[in-house]
Amino acid sequence: MTEQNPLSRQQLVAGAADMIRRRGLNATSIREVAKHAQTPLGSTYHYFPGGKQQLATEAVRFAGDAVARMLDKELRAGPVEGLRAFLALWREIITSTDFQAGCPVLAVSIEEHAADERPAVLAAAAEVFNGWEAQLADSMRQHGADPQAAGQLATLVVAAAEGAVAMCRAQRSTRPLDQVSAQLEELTRTTVCN
Amino acid sequence: MTEQNPLSRQQLVAGAADMIRRRGLNATSIREVAKHAQTPLGSTYHYFPGGKQQLATEAVRFAGDAVARMLDKELRAGPVEGLRAFLALWREIITSTDFQAGCPVLAVSIEEHAADERPAVLAAAAEVFNGWEAQLADSMRQHGADPQAAGQLATLVVAAAEGAVAMCRAQRSTRPLDQVSAQLEELTRTTVCN
Repeated sequence: MTEQNPLSRQQLVAGAADMIRRRGLNATSIREVAKHAQTPLGSTYHYFPGGKQQLATEAVRFAGDAVARMLDKELRAGPVEGLRAFLALWREIITSTDFQAGCPVLAVSIEEHAADERPAVLAAAAEVFNGWEAQLADSMRQHGADPQAAGQLATLVVAAAEGAVAMCRAQRSTRPLDQVSAQLEELTRTTVCN
Repeated sequence: MTEQNPLSRQQLVAGAADMIRRRGLNATSIREVAKHAQTPLGSTYHYFPGGKQQLATEAVRFAGDAVARMLDKELRAGPVEGLRAFLALWREIITSTDFQAGCPVLAVSIEEHAADERPAVLAAAAEVFNGWEAQLADSMRQHGADPQAAGQLATLVVAAAEGAVAMCRAQRSTRPLDQVSAQLEELTRTTVCN
């Protein structure tokens, strides 16, 4: 009854997210995801009749939700604590994988799609970025930040973390993320105090 | 005498950079780059005996040098003017391609490579990022910024621009880059004045 096992489905989604954050969407195949999750290829198509596009879309939401839950928990201690946890998460991802893995949400965002259509996976990525930004901005506003400044800084935090992770992978060093973290923490303190 | 034409070689490098910034390294093939540049496949291997890896490495350097030359020119007017030109360049790239193109240097940085080797293309990407950071930081220091703060802010500028470009492509909107630009410009002014 493998095909009815919800665990297999979840493993496939998690496996796809891991593959995409390492090698990108184009280089990720359903066949390899199935192999990686030790699931028969047939059941993969059973779970994801929409094929790779559907699997990738769910993988992006899965990764987005994991970060959102962590943020939700850590932001309870305040915006600076939430920011620290967000940056520490990315640091942990790159160091624990020897700079081989980054963010699957960024990975799907930078591949070419037909200009006249908006694929589900890209829409999911946009939603995830918007969601993280909203969580960070809301927390800053609740701690006294000017609404516009909070919105801008939240976008800066997500953009800088995403860009720094890619730079760390190129340089095989955590330096870019560490430099960015120092600046973002100071900025968050100032924005919240104002 | 196509094979001796330096223009063809340059067209191949520029074509590879364009393909990589649109679809990533994995999805870029020498065959398609040759077709795109209207150059026979044979001459491609003649120019780049190291194959795709060599072509991609030169494409990353080509893109990096183009930005570095622009920065060098614009930073003469000051760090804020240089920053504005840097961000305007990325904005122009995403809007002129209907959000289909981003940065080839980031694209090659987020694909999996063997853990025990450092491919030339990744080393080239690291050098390009370091070079842009150094140009921005030097300009800030020459305009009175604290050396450490200048270094951190320069990394933040490159990371945030790279991350924001990816977010803009996902959201098919320039909003993330515009938000980030407002913050970075204010920060640069403050850092230089201090």
